[in-house]
Amino acid sequence: MIVIRDEEIRRLVRFEVVLAALERAFVALEEGASSIFDVARGRGGGPEHFFAVKSAREGSIPMLGLKAGSYAPGNHARGLDAHTSTTLLIDDATGAPLAVVEANYLNALRTSGVNALATRRLARPDAATLGIIGIGHQAIYEALAVCHVRPIERIIAVGSDAGRRAKFVEGVRTRLERWGHRANAGVDIEFADARTASSNADVLVTVTPSRAPIVQAAWVRPGTHISAMGADDVGKQELDVDLVSNALCFADHPEQSIRIGEFQHAHKAGRLSLQGLRERTLGRLIRDPDSCTRSPETITVFDSSGLAIQDIAAAHAAMLAVRLQS
Amino acid sequence: MIVIRDEEIRRLVRFEVVLAALERAFVALEEGASSIFDVARGRGGGPEHFFAVKSAREGSIPMLGLKAGSYAPGNHARGLDAHTSTTLLIDDATGAPLAVVEANYLNALRTSGVNALATRRLARPDAATLGIIGIGHQAIYEALAVCHVRPIERIIAVGSDAGRRAKFVEGVRTRLERWGHRANAGVDIEFADARTASSNADVLVTVTPSRAPIVQAAWVRPGTHISAMGADDVGKQELDVDLVSNALCFADHPEQSIRIGEFQHAHKAGRLSLQGLRERTLGRLIRDPDSCTRSPETITVFDSSGLAIQDIAAAHAAMLAVRLQS
Repeated sequence: MIVIRDEEIRRLVRFEVVLAALERAFVALEEGASSIFDVARGRGGGPEHFFAVKSAREGSIPMLGLKAGSYAPGNHARGLDAHTSTTLLIDDATGAPLAVVEANYLNALRTSGVNALATRRLARPDAATLGIIGIGHQAIYEALAVCHVRPIERIIAVGSDAGRRAKFVEGVRTRLERWGHRANAGVDIEFADARTASSNADVLVTVTPSRAPIVQAAWVRPGTHISAMGADDVGKQELDVDLVSNALCFADHPEQSIRIGEFQHAHKAGRLSLQGLRERTLGRLIRDPDSCTRSPETITVFDSSGLAIQDIAAAHAAMLAVRLQS
Repeated sequence: MIVIRDEEIRRLVRFEVVLAALERAFVALEEGASSIFDVARGRGGGPEHFFAVKSAREGSIPMLGLKAGSYAPGNHARGLDAHTSTTLLIDDATGAPLAVVEANYLNALRTSGVNALATRRLARPDAATLGIIGIGHQAIYEALAVCHVRPIERIIAVGSDAGRRAKFVEGVRTRLERWGHRANAGVDIEFADARTASSNADVLVTVTPSRAPIVQAAWVRPGTHISAMGADDVGKQELDVDLVSNALCFADHPEQSIRIGEFQHAHKAGRLSLQGLRERTLGRLIRDPDSCTRSPETITVFDSSGLAIQDIAAAHAAMLAVRLQS
C-alpha cells in the first residue's frame, strides 16, 4: 500500500486525465459493470461536523474503493479547509489495500469533472457567459471546469461575502493560467444577484448548500444549460421545481438523484419520472451523445449528486500519474 | 497521515493493550459517547468476494474511523488469507486522516478480544476445558483469548479438515509460547464432534460461518459460558434457539445482535427481548460487573456481532504503540 499526498496530486495530475477516467467510469456504470454501495453517514466531534463514507466497485478498472469525507466548519478557525477527503483503493480480486490518497484537491476535480463532462455535451458550443451561484472553494473549480470546455468570456458570480469574492477571483484567475487556459485568463469576472446571473447565462452552475430554490424558472433563457452541483442530501435544493419540470433533465445516477439530489423535489411533486431519467444519464450521454437530441431552445439541467466511482476513478488516475513519475 | 504495517503490529502490539482499548471503547459505547454508522456491503470481482465498510465514532479517544474488510476465498489459491482488513483513523475534530492501518492481525485480536472480555466476566474462574467449534484462522485467536483469561488445560476442537487441524494445533501452541503463556503451553488439544466438545466444555466458543444451529440445548452443562463469535449477517446461526432462550444472554450491541448476530433467531421467535438485552451489554458488564449476578448453574451466552469501534480502538492502540517505539 502506498500513500499519495495532496501535493503530489496538485503537481502531477492534470484535469484532462481526471476527465478521461471519469468518462470511462460513467460508461462502465451505464453498462452495468459497476456497483454503488450504501452511503454511511455520521457526525464527528465539534459543531456541525458531518462525516460520510461512500464506497463502490468501479468496473472500468476494475477496483473497489471508498472515500471518507468530512465537512467540519470549525476548521476555518484553524486556518484549514472545512472539507477533507481521503480515498482508499482496494484490489478488486484480493481485497488488498493498494493506495490511500489524500483527496482534497482530487475531490474538487472529481466533482467539477462531471460538470465539465455534462457541459461539454449539453451546453451550446459558443456559450460565452457563465453564471455561477455560490463562490466558495468548490465554485472556483466549477468555473474552471466550464472554462475548460466552453469559450467563456464573462463570469457573473453570485455571493456577497467580500473575502470570498476576492478569493474566488484570485482562485479562478491564477488557476486558469496554471491550467494553461491563457485564452481565458482575461475572462471578465463580475458579481451580481441570482436573477442577473441566471438571466444572462449561457451556462449556469449552482454550487451552494441551499435548502430552498434559488433559481426561478422565469429567469432562465431558452437554450441555457444548468449544472446543479449543490444538492447531495435530503432537503437540499437550488432550482425551482417549475424550472426542472420544464427542462430536459440528466442525472449522474437517477435513483440517487431523486433520493438526495436536486431532482428529489420535482420527482416528489410527480413532475419528473425516474423512468425518463434512466434514459438520460451522464453515462449514456458520454457513450452515445446523439441519443439525446434536442432543439437549440431547450433548457437542459444536469444534476450531480456525487458517486464513489468518481473518487475511485480519480484516485486511480492519480496513482498511475504518480507511478509514472517515480 | 502515517501507514502502519501489519508486521509492525505483530511485533509491537500486545493483546493486553488491545483488551484495555476495547474495554474503554465498550464503556464509552455504553455511556452513549460513541456512534455506530450504517454498514455498507457490496461485492468485489471474482467468486464470492464480499466487501464491507464499517464506520463509527469511538467516543473514548475520541476518533472517527472505518474498516474496509474483504472476504475473498479465491485468495487461498494465491497463497493469501481470504480476509483482508484495512482501518483508517480520522481526526474527530477536523476530519483529517491520521493513520491507515494494515489490520489483518489486528482484526484477529479485536475480534477475539471481545471474547476475552466477556469470558473474563462470565465464565467460571476455574474453567479448565475449552470447547471450540470451528478451526479456521480466527479460531486460533479465539482459543488464545480464552487461555489468556482462564486456566485452560484442555481444548476440544471441532473440525474435520486434516490440514486445518494441523494448522490449528501449531497456531495455538506457538502463539501461546510467544504470548508468554508458558503455563498453558502444555495444554492438551484434541479433536471431537460438536456434541462431545459442547458437553465437556466449561467455556464453549463457536467460530464458524454456519447458517443452521450446531450446538443443541441438551448438550450444554449448567454453568457453561458460550461465546458465539460467528454470526454477523442475516441468516447466520450457530446455536439452537432453545439454548439461547434458556440462557442469560449478553450482546456487544443489542440492536445489531438481533438484526445480524446470533440472537436474531431467538428474537424473531419471540423468546429473547431487545429490552432485556439492553440491560446486558458487554459495556455494562465491564463498567459494572456486579450488575449481572447469576447462580453458578446459569448458562451464559455472549454474542459478538462485530463493531467498528473495535477496529478504531485497536488501530488507535496500535498507532500509539508504534509511535512509542519510533
